[in-house]
Amino acid sequence: MKQILAFSVCALLCAVIVHAQSSKPRPYKVVFDLTTDNPQDQTAVLRWLREVASVNPETEMEVVMYGRGLALVVPGRSTLTEDVKEALGRPHVSFKVCEIAMRNQQVDRSELLPKVMTVPDGIGEIVARQKDGWGYIKAVVH
Amino acid sequence: MKQILAFSVCALLCAVIVHAQSSKPRPYKVVFDLTTDNPQDQTAVLRWLREVASVNPETEMEVVMYGRGLALVVPGRSTLTEDVKEALGRPHVSFKVCEIAMRNQQVDRSELLPKVMTVPDGIGEIVARQKDGWGYIKAVVH
Amino acid sequence: MKQILAFSVCALLCAVIVHAQSSKPRPYKVVFDLTTDNPQDQTAVLRWLREVASVNPETEMEVVMYGRGLALVVPGRSTLTEDVKEALGRPHVSFKVCEIAMRNQQVDRSELLPKVMTVPDGIGEIVARQKDGWGYIKAVVH
Repeated sequence: MKQILAFSVCALLCAVIVHAQSSKPRPYKVVFDLTTDNPQDQTAVLRWLREVASVNPETEMEVVMYGRGLALVVPGRSTLTEDVKEALGRPHVSFKVCEIAMRNQQVDRSELLPKVMTVPDGIGEIVARQKDGWGYIKAVVH
Repeated sequence: MKQILAFSVCALLCAVIVHAQSSKPRPYKVVFDLTTDNPQDQTAVLRWLREVASVNPETEMEVVMYGRGLALVVPGRSTLTEDVKEALGRPHVSFKVCEIAMRNQQVDRSELLPKVMTVPDGIGEIVARQKDGWGYIKAVVH
Repeated sequence: MKQILAFSVCALLCAVIVHAQSSKPRPYKVVFDLTTDNPQDQTAVLRWLREVASVNPETEMEVVMYGRGLALVVPGRSTLTEDVKEALGRPHVSFKVCEIAMRNQQVDRSELLPKVMTVPDGIGEIVARQKDGWGYIKAVVH
Protein backbone atom coordinates (compact mmCIF):
# COMPACT_ATOMS: atom_id res chain seq x y z
CA MET A 1 0.00 0.00 0.00
CA LYS A 2 2.80 2.36 1.00
CA GLN A 3 4.58 1.53 -2.25
CA ILE A 4 1.51 2.34 -4.31
CA LEU A 5 1.14 5.65 -2.48
CA ALA A 6 4.83 6.50 -2.97
CA PHE A 7 4.58 5.62 -6.65
CA SER A 8 1.44 7.73 -7.11
CA VAL A 9 3.02 10.75 -5.44
CA CYS A 10 6.09 10.33 -7.61
CA ALA A 11 4.00 10.05 -10.80
CA LEU A 12 2.03 13.15 -9.84
CA LEU A 13 5.24 15.11 -9.22
CA CYS A 14 6.59 14.02 -12.60
CA ALA A 15 3.39 15.13 -14.30
CA VAL A 16 3.58 18.53 -12.59
CA ILE A 17 7.23 18.97 -13.61
CA VAL A 18 6.54 17.94 -17.21
CA HIS A 19 3.58 20.30 -17.37
CA ALA A 20 5.62 23.18 -15.96
CA GLN A 21 8.30 22.52 -18.55
CA SER A 22 5.90 22.24 -21.46
CA SER A 23 4.09 25.45 -20.53
CA LYS A 24 7.40 27.32 -20.52
CA PRO A 25 8.03 28.56 -24.09
CA ARG A 26 11.03 27.05 -25.86
CA PRO A 27 13.83 29.52 -26.60
CA TYR A 28 14.37 30.28 -30.26
CA LYS A 29 16.77 32.23 -32.47
CA VAL A 30 15.72 35.19 -34.57
CA VAL A 31 17.43 37.77 -36.74
CA PHE A 32 15.83 41.20 -37.25
CA ASP A 33 16.52 42.96 -40.57
CA LEU A 34 16.55 46.76 -40.15
CA THR A 35 17.05 48.93 -43.25
CA THR A 36 15.29 52.17 -42.33
CA ASP A 37 16.12 55.03 -39.97
CA ASN A 38 12.43 55.55 -39.28
CA PRO A 39 11.95 56.12 -35.51
CA GLN A 40 8.83 53.92 -35.47
CA ASP A 41 10.76 50.96 -36.90
CA GLN A 42 13.67 51.61 -34.51
CA THR A 43 11.33 51.80 -31.52
CA ALA A 44 9.57 48.61 -32.61
CA VAL A 45 12.78 46.57 -32.82
CA LEU A 46 13.89 47.73 -29.38
CA ARG A 47 10.44 46.91 -27.94
CA TRP A 48 10.48 43.44 -29.52
CA LEU A 49 13.90 42.73 -28.00
CA ARG A 50 12.50 43.61 -24.56
CA GLU A 51 9.18 41.82 -24.96
CA VAL A 52 10.52 38.57 -26.39
CA ALA A 53 13.14 38.49 -23.61
CA SER A 54 10.39 39.01 -21.02
CA VAL A 55 8.34 36.01 -22.17
CA ASN A 56 11.26 33.88 -23.37
CA PRO A 57 14.53 34.94 -21.67
CA GLU A 58 16.86 32.43 -23.37
CA THR A 59 15.90 33.44 -26.92
CA GLU A 60 18.84 34.54 -29.09
CA MET A 61 18.19 37.81 -30.94
CA GLU A 62 20.36 39.59 -33.47
CA VAL A 63 19.64 42.91 -35.16
CA VAL A 64 21.38 43.28 -38.54
CA MET A 65 21.49 46.83 -39.89
CA TYR A 66 22.33 47.90 -43.44
CA GLY A 67 21.25 50.78 -45.69
CA ARG A 68 19.80 53.53 -43.50
CA GLY A 69 19.30 50.99 -40.69
CA LEU A 70 22.69 51.64 -39.15
CA ALA A 71 21.61 55.08 -37.85
CA LEU A 72 20.17 53.27 -34.81
CA VAL A 73 23.62 52.55 -33.37
CA VAL A 74 25.38 55.82 -34.29
CA PRO A 75 25.11 58.40 -31.48
CA GLY A 76 23.94 61.70 -32.98
CA ARG A 77 21.98 59.93 -35.72
CA SER A 78 19.43 58.35 -33.35
CA THR A 79 17.50 59.49 -30.29
CA LEU A 80 17.27 55.93 -29.02
CA THR A 81 20.92 55.45 -28.09
CA GLU A 82 20.14 54.83 -24.40
CA ASP A 83 17.65 52.09 -25.26
CA VAL A 84 20.21 50.44 -27.57
CA LYS A 85 22.83 50.54 -24.77
CA GLU A 86 20.35 48.94 -22.41
CA ALA A 87 19.58 46.21 -24.98
CA LEU A 88 23.31 45.61 -25.59
CA GLY A 89 23.74 45.03 -21.85
CA ARG A 90 21.36 42.07 -21.87
CA PRO A 91 22.49 38.52 -22.66
CA HIS A 92 21.41 36.87 -25.95
CA VAL A 93 21.18 40.20 -27.80
CA SER A 94 23.59 41.42 -30.48
CA PHE A 95 23.67 44.28 -32.98
CA LYS A 96 25.61 43.92 -36.23
CA VAL A 97 26.27 46.60 -38.83
CA CYS A 98 27.06 45.96 -42.50
CA GLU A 99 30.53 47.22 -43.44
CA ILE A 100 29.42 48.01 -47.00
CA ALA A 101 26.78 50.38 -45.61
CA MET A 102 29.40 51.93 -43.32
CA ARG A 103 31.71 52.63 -46.29
CA ASN A 104 28.81 54.03 -48.37
CA GLN A 105 27.85 56.40 -45.56
CA GLN A 106 31.42 57.08 -44.39
CA VAL A 107 30.77 55.82 -40.88
CA ASP A 108 33.84 54.66 -38.99
CA ARG A 109 33.82 51.74 -36.57
CA SER A 110 34.79 54.19 -33.80
CA GLU A 111 31.48 56.04 -34.30
CA LEU A 112 29.40 52.99 -33.38
CA LEU A 113 28.15 52.36 -29.86
CA PRO A 114 30.43 50.06 -27.82
CA LYS A 115 29.66 46.30 -28.18
CA VAL A 116 28.07 46.83 -31.61
CA MET A 117 29.70 44.40 -34.05
CA THR A 118 30.31 44.72 -37.78
CA VAL A 119 29.97 42.15 -40.57
CA PRO A 120 31.47 42.35 -44.09
CA ASP A 121 28.06 41.86 -45.76
CA GLY A 122 24.80 42.46 -43.89
CA ILE A 123 22.67 40.51 -46.36
CA GLY A 124 25.16 37.63 -46.25
CA GLU A 125 24.96 37.63 -42.43
CA ILE A 126 21.15 37.41 -42.51
CA VAL A 127 21.19 34.63 -45.12
CA ALA A 128 23.77 32.68 -43.09
CA ARG A 129 21.54 32.94 -40.01
CA GLN A 130 18.52 31.70 -41.97
CA LYS A 131 20.66 28.83 -43.32
CA ASP A 132 21.51 27.94 -39.70
CA GLY A 133 17.80 27.70 -38.84
CA TRP A 134 17.29 31.13 -37.31
CA GLY A 135 13.94 32.80 -37.88
CA TYR A 136 13.80 36.01 -39.91
CA ILE A 137 11.73 39.11 -39.21
CA LYS A 138 11.78 42.21 -41.39
CA ALA A 139 11.64 45.15 -38.99
CA VAL A 140 9.27 47.59 -40.64
CA VAL A 141 6.08 48.75 -38.98
CA HIS A 142 5.42 52.29 -40.18
CA MET B 1 -0.82 -7.61 -80.80
CA LYS B 2 -3.70 -7.02 -78.43
CA GLN B 3 -1.25 -7.03 -75.55
CA ILE B 4 0.92 -4.40 -77.22
CA LEU B 5 -2.11 -2.21 -77.86
CA ALA B 6 -3.33 -2.59 -74.26
CA PHE B 7 0.15 -1.75 -72.98
CA SER B 8 0.39 1.33 -75.21
CA VAL B 9 -3.00 2.65 -74.10
CA CYS B 10 -2.03 2.11 -70.49
CA ALA B 11 1.31 3.90 -70.94
CA LEU B 12 -0.43 6.81 -72.65
CA LEU B 13 -2.96 7.08 -69.80
CA CYS B 14 -0.16 7.09 -67.25
CA ALA B 15 1.67 9.84 -69.15
CA VAL B 16 -1.50 11.95 -69.25
CA ILE B 17 -2.09 11.48 -65.52
CA VAL B 18 1.53 12.33 -64.64
CA HIS B 19 1.39 15.43 -66.84
CA ALA B 20 -1.87 16.57 -65.27
CA GLN B 21 -0.32 16.16 -61.82
CA SER B 22 2.91 17.94 -62.66
CA SER B 23 1.16 20.94 -64.23
CA LYS B 24 -0.96 21.41 -61.11
CA PRO B 25 1.01 23.59 -58.67
CA ARG B 26 2.08 21.87 -55.47
CA PRO B 27 0.40 23.22 -52.33
CA TYR B 28 2.73 25.03 -49.95
CA LYS B 29 2.62 26.62 -46.51
CA VAL B 30 3.20 30.30 -45.91
CA VAL B 31 3.01 32.68 -42.98
CA PHE B 32 2.28 36.38 -43.57
CA ASP B 33 3.77 38.85 -41.08
CA LEU B 34 1.55 41.93 -40.66
CA THR B 35 2.73 44.75 -38.38
CA THR B 36 1.03 47.82 -39.83
CA ASP B 37 -2.54 49.10 -39.83
CA ASN B 38 -2.01 50.63 -43.26
CA PRO B 39 -5.09 49.91 -45.42
CA GLN B 40 -2.89 49.16 -48.46
CA ASP B 41 -1.01 46.46 -46.57
CA GLN B 42 -4.25 45.05 -45.14
CA THR B 43 -5.87 44.98 -48.59
CA ALA B 44 -2.78 43.30 -50.06
CA VAL B 45 -2.77 40.46 -47.52
CA LEU B 46 -6.46 39.78 -48.08
CA ARG B 47 -5.94 39.82 -51.86
CA TRP B 48 -2.98 37.41 -51.60
CA LEU B 49 -5.08 34.99 -49.52
CA ARG B 50 -7.71 34.99 -52.29
CA GLU B 51 -5.30 34.83 -55.21
CA VAL B 52 -3.06 32.09 -53.87
CA ALA B 53 -6.16 30.02 -52.99
CA SER B 54 -7.46 30.53 -56.54
CA VAL B 55 -4.32 29.14 -58.21
CA ASN B 56 -3.37 26.68 -55.45
CA PRO B 57 -6.42 25.78 -53.32
CA GLU B 58 -4.68 23.41 -50.86
CA THR B 59 -2.03 25.92 -49.79
CA GLU B 60 -1.93 26.59 -46.03
CA MET B 61 -1.87 30.30 -45.16
CA GLU B 62 -1.53 31.95 -41.79
CA VAL B 63 -1.59 35.67 -41.05
CA VAL B 64 0.25 36.60 -37.85
CA MET B 65 -0.48 40.08 -36.54
CA TYR B 66 1.49 42.01 -33.92
CA GLY B 67 2.21 45.69 -33.30
CA ARG B 68 -0.36 47.76 -35.18
CA GLY B 69 -1.11 44.74 -37.38
CA LEU B 70 -3.88 43.49 -35.12
CA ALA B 71 -6.22 46.33 -36.16
CA LEU B 72 -7.20 44.21 -39.16
CA VAL B 73 -9.23 41.78 -37.03
CA VAL B 74 -10.77 44.27 -34.56
CA PRO B 75 -14.17 45.55 -35.77
CA GLY B 76 -14.19 49.34 -35.53
CA ARG B 77 -10.45 49.57 -36.15
CA SER B 78 -10.61 48.26 -39.73
CA THR B 79 -12.89 48.82 -42.69
CA LEU B 80 -12.04 45.40 -44.09
CA THR B 81 -13.88 43.32 -41.49
CA GLU B 82 -16.18 41.72 -44.06
CA ASP B 83 -13.23 40.60 -46.20
CA VAL B 84 -11.54 39.10 -43.13
CA LYS B 85 -14.73 37.20 -42.24
CA GLU B 86 -14.90 35.87 -45.77
CA ALA B 87 -11.24 34.76 -45.59
CA LEU B 88 -11.82 33.12 -42.20
CA GLY B 89 -14.65 31.09 -43.74
CA ARG B 90 -12.29 29.45 -46.24
CA PRO B 91 -10.31 26.27 -45.44
CA HIS B 92 -6.50 26.48 -45.01
CA VAL B 93 -6.62 30.08 -43.77
CA SER B 94 -5.97 31.22 -40.20
CA PHE B 95 -5.45 34.56 -38.46
CA LYS B 96 -3.42 34.74 -35.25
CA VAL B 97 -2.93 37.75 -33.00
CA CYS B 98 0.01 38.27 -30.62
CA GLU B 99 -1.15 38.40 -26.98
CA ILE B 100 1.67 40.79 -26.06
CA ALA B 101 0.36 43.29 -28.64
CA MET B 102 -3.17 42.80 -27.27
CA ARG B 103 -2.02 43.65 -23.74
CA ASN B 104 -0.02 46.68 -24.98
CA GLN B 105 -3.06 48.02 -26.82
CA GLN B 106 -5.61 46.86 -24.22
CA VAL B 107 -7.51 44.74 -26.70
CA ASP B 108 -9.55 41.93 -25.17
CA ARG B 109 -10.00 38.55 -26.84
CA SER B 110 -13.75 39.27 -27.00
CA GLU B 111 -13.08 42.24 -29.29
CA LEU B 112 -11.54 40.05 -32.01
CA LEU B 113 -13.56 38.67 -34.90
CA PRO B 114 -14.85 35.12 -34.30
CA LYS B 115 -12.41 32.33 -35.37
CA VAL B 116 -9.39 34.63 -34.97
CA MET B 117 -6.86 32.86 -32.75
CA THR B 118 -4.29 34.27 -30.35
CA VAL B 119 -0.69 33.24 -29.67
CA PRO B 120 1.44 34.16 -26.63
CA ASP B 121 4.24 35.60 -28.80
CA GLY B 122 3.64 36.60 -32.43
CA ILE B 123 7.33 36.65 -33.35
CA GLY B 124 7.77 33.23 -31.71
CA GLU B 125 4.83 31.89 -33.76
CA ILE B 126 6.39 33.12 -37.01
CA VAL B 127 9.81 31.71 -36.14
CA ALA B 128 8.24 28.34 -35.23
CA ARG B 129 6.50 28.25 -38.62
CA GLN B 130 9.75 29.01 -40.43
CA LYS B 131 11.47 26.29 -38.39
CA ASP B 132 8.74 23.88 -39.56
CA GLY B 133 9.53 24.72 -43.20
CA TRP B 134 6.81 27.27 -43.86
CA GLY B 135 7.65 30.13 -46.20
CA TYR B 136 7.69 33.68 -44.79
CA ILE B 137 6.35 36.82 -46.45
CA LYS B 138 6.52 40.26 -44.85
CA ALA B 139 3.21 41.93 -45.67
CA VAL B 140 4.16 45.49 -46.53
CA VAL B 141 3.43 47.06 -49.89
CA HIS B 142 2.83 50.76 -49.30
CA MET C 1 66.67 16.94 -42.18
CA LYS C 2 65.62 17.43 -45.80
CA GLN C 3 62.42 15.53 -45.06
CA ILE C 4 61.59 17.76 -42.12
CA LEU C 5 62.21 20.85 -44.24
CA ALA C 6 60.04 19.51 -47.09
CA PHE C 7 57.29 18.66 -44.63
CA SER C 8 57.43 22.13 -43.03
CA VAL C 9 57.24 23.89 -46.39
CA CYS C 10 54.30 21.71 -47.37
CA ALA C 11 52.48 22.40 -44.08
CA LEU C 12 53.05 26.13 -44.50
CA LEU C 13 51.68 26.06 -48.04
CA CYS C 14 48.59 24.18 -46.87
CA ALA C 15 48.01 26.73 -44.10
CA VAL C 16 48.28 29.60 -46.59
CA ILE C 17 45.81 27.93 -48.98
CA VAL C 18 43.31 27.16 -46.21
CA HIS C 19 43.57 30.74 -44.94
CA ALA C 20 43.03 32.17 -48.42
CA GLN C 21 39.97 30.00 -48.84
CA SER C 22 38.48 30.84 -45.46
CA SER C 23 38.93 34.58 -45.92
CA LYS C 24 37.04 34.47 -49.23
CA PRO C 25 33.31 34.71 -48.46
CA ARG C 26 31.25 31.65 -49.40
CA PRO C 27 28.71 32.26 -52.17
CA TYR C 28 25.09 32.08 -51.08
CA LYS C 29 21.62 32.21 -52.61
CA VAL C 30 19.11 34.90 -51.83
CA VAL C 31 15.68 35.93 -53.06
CA PHE C 32 14.57 39.57 -52.82
CA ASP C 33 10.84 40.22 -52.37
CA LEU C 34 9.78 43.51 -54.01
CA THR C 35 6.15 44.63 -53.69
CA THR C 36 6.39 48.42 -53.94
CA ASP C 37 7.05 50.82 -56.80
CA ASN C 38 8.80 53.20 -54.44
CA PRO C 39 11.99 54.51 -56.11
CA GLN C 40 13.97 54.19 -52.85
CA ASP C 41 13.12 50.49 -52.60
CA GLN C 42 13.88 49.97 -56.29
CA THR C 43 17.22 51.76 -55.99
CA ALA C 44 18.09 49.74 -52.88
CA VAL C 45 17.49 46.37 -54.58
CA LEU C 46 19.62 47.34 -57.56
CA ARG C 47 22.40 48.58 -55.25
CA TRP C 48 22.30 45.33 -53.22
CA LEU C 49 22.63 43.29 -56.42
CA ARG C 50 25.76 45.27 -57.31
CA GLU C 51 27.27 45.32 -53.85
CA VAL C 52 26.75 41.65 -53.00
CA ALA C 53 28.22 40.72 -56.42
CA SER C 54 31.24 42.94 -55.70
CA VAL C 55 32.10 41.22 -52.40
CA ASN C 56 30.80 37.75 -53.34
CA PRO C 57 30.69 37.31 -57.14
CA GLU C 58 29.31 33.74 -57.22
CA THR C 59 26.24 34.52 -55.09
CA GLU C 60 22.91 33.68 -56.75
CA MET C 61 20.36 36.49 -56.53
CA GLU C 62 16.75 36.53 -57.66
CA VAL C 63 14.34 39.47 -57.48
CA VAL C 64 10.69 38.40 -57.34
CA MET C 65 8.19 41.15 -58.06
CA TYR C 66 4.46 41.10 -57.36
CA GLY C 67 1.88 43.75 -56.46
CA ARG C 68 3.25 47.18 -57.42
CA GLY C 69 6.76 45.68 -57.46
CA LEU C 70 6.62 44.79 -61.14
CA ALA C 71 6.86 48.47 -62.19
CA LEU C 72 10.64 48.11 -61.89
CA VAL C 73 10.90 46.00 -65.07
CA VAL C 74 8.27 47.79 -67.20
CA PRO C 75 9.83 50.56 -69.32
CA GLY C 76 7.78 53.72 -68.85
CA ARG C 77 6.79 52.77 -65.32
CA SER C 78 10.30 53.04 -63.89
CA THR C 79 13.22 55.45 -64.30
CA LEU C 80 15.70 52.72 -63.42
CA THR C 81 15.33 50.67 -66.60
CA GLU C 82 19.00 51.09 -67.56
CA ASP C 83 20.17 49.84 -64.16
CA VAL C 84 17.88 46.81 -64.45
CA LYS C 85 19.28 46.03 -67.92
CA GLU C 86 22.80 46.27 -66.53
CA ALA C 87 21.88 43.90 -63.66
CA LEU C 88 20.23 41.46 -66.09
CA GLY C 89 23.49 41.34 -68.06
CA ARG C 90 25.42 39.98 -65.07
CA PRO C 91 25.64 36.25 -64.27
CA HIS C 92 23.81 34.89 -61.18
CA VAL C 93 21.08 37.54 -61.32
CA SER C 94 17.47 36.97 -62.36
CA PHE C 95 14.25 38.98 -62.24
CA LYS C 96 10.90 37.20 -62.05
CA VAL C 97 7.44 38.76 -62.27
CA CYS C 98 4.24 37.25 -60.84
CA GLU C 99 1.74 36.45 -63.60
CA ILE C 100 -1.20 37.11 -61.26
CA ALA C 101 0.06 40.67 -60.72
CA MET C 102 0.51 41.06 -64.50
CA ARG C 103 -3.12 40.05 -65.11
CA ASN C 104 -4.36 42.36 -62.33
CA GLN C 105 -2.49 45.30 -63.81
CA GLN C 106 -3.04 44.30 -67.46
CA VAL C 107 0.67 44.09 -68.20
CA ASP C 108 1.59 41.87 -71.13
CA ARG C 109 4.74 39.76 -71.23
CA SER C 110 5.88 41.81 -74.26
CA GLU C 111 5.96 44.94 -72.08
CA LEU C 112 8.63 43.52 -69.78
CA LEU C 113 12.34 44.15 -70.30
CA PRO C 114 14.09 41.37 -72.24
CA LYS C 115 15.45 38.49 -70.08
CA VAL C 116 12.88 39.20 -67.32
CA MET C 117 11.10 35.94 -66.51
CA THR C 118 7.57 35.33 -65.27
CA VAL C 119 6.25 32.86 -62.68
CA PRO C 120 2.63 31.73 -62.21
CA ASP C 121 2.60 32.74 -58.52
CA GLY C 122 5.18 35.16 -57.10
CA ILE C 123 4.55 34.17 -53.47
CA GLY C 124 4.79 30.49 -54.44
CA GLU C 125 8.13 31.18 -56.15
CA ILE C 126 9.53 32.86 -53.02
CA VAL C 127 8.29 30.09 -50.75
CA ALA C 128 9.83 27.45 -53.07
CA ARG C 129 13.17 29.26 -52.92
CA GLN C 130 13.04 29.39 -49.12
CA LYS C 131 12.15 25.68 -49.07
CA ASP C 132 15.28 25.05 -51.20
CA GLY C 133 17.45 26.82 -48.61
CA TRP C 134 17.69 30.24 -50.23
CA GLY C 135 17.81 33.24 -47.91
CA TYR C 136 14.92 35.73 -48.00
CA ILE C 137 15.15 39.51 -47.86
CA LYS C 138 12.12 41.80 -47.96
CA ALA C 139 13.14 44.75 -50.11
CA VAL C 140 11.70 47.75 -48.33
CA VAL C 141 13.85 50.60 -47.06
CA HIS C 142 11.79 53.76 -47.27
